[in-house]
Amino acid sequence: MPVERRKRGTMEIMLDILKSCNQECGVTKVIYGAGINYTVAQKYLDKLIKIGALTSKTENGRKMYEITEKGKILMVHIEEFLKIRENLNVAREKIIELLKVSQ
Amino acid sequence: MPVERRKRGTMEIMLDILKSCNQECGVTKVIYGAGINYTVAQKYLDKLIKIGALTSKTENGRKMYEITEKGKILMVHIEEFLKIRENLNVAREKIIELLKVSQ
Repeated sequence: MPVERRKRGTMEIMLDILKSCNQECGVTKVIYGAGINYTVAQKYLDKLIKIGALTSKTENGRKMYEITEKGKILMVHIEEFLKIRENLNVAREKIIELLKVSQ
Repeated sequence: MPVERRKRGTMEIMLDILKSCNQECGVTKVIYGAGINYTVAQKYLDKLIKIGALTSKTENGRKMYEITEKGKILMVHIEEFLKIRENLNVAREKIIELLKVSQ
């Protein structure tokens, strides 16, 4: 695991799952797409189905997931949130720099 | 004190102090401008002088403070930071709304 890889939070994981389910997919694709284990994947999938961001159906005994219109809206909002959060970090860094005693 | 008044952090306090010192001012104006007590005001004033955001001089036995060019730059960056943080809160609220189970 690269050193610079920071711990990913709920927002990043949800975004990765929604992206993975942009086309119908099984739990394995979700696990690899979001870089999480089976238990965590199942917890998020259940939550996303519950709020109507994903639909699920069983095909040949295999559970398949797909994003809904609500899920696409959620995806856009999470992307927006992560972008703003990145901007906030940049702004914070600038201030920290200014607060240093220069000598 | 109004109920909706939220606890103010370092950024808000520094911004208020820098604004108060936009024109030469004494510690009383800082205390009222930033809504803080003498001890807190002194702590922030010392810090802001140390980093070169404020200058101080003694006039008729009274210590006076004034913003510097660096202080003005810091003020702009803090305003920017607070604006972005507000946007982040709005984005977060939208997501929280979408994550609610609608029924």
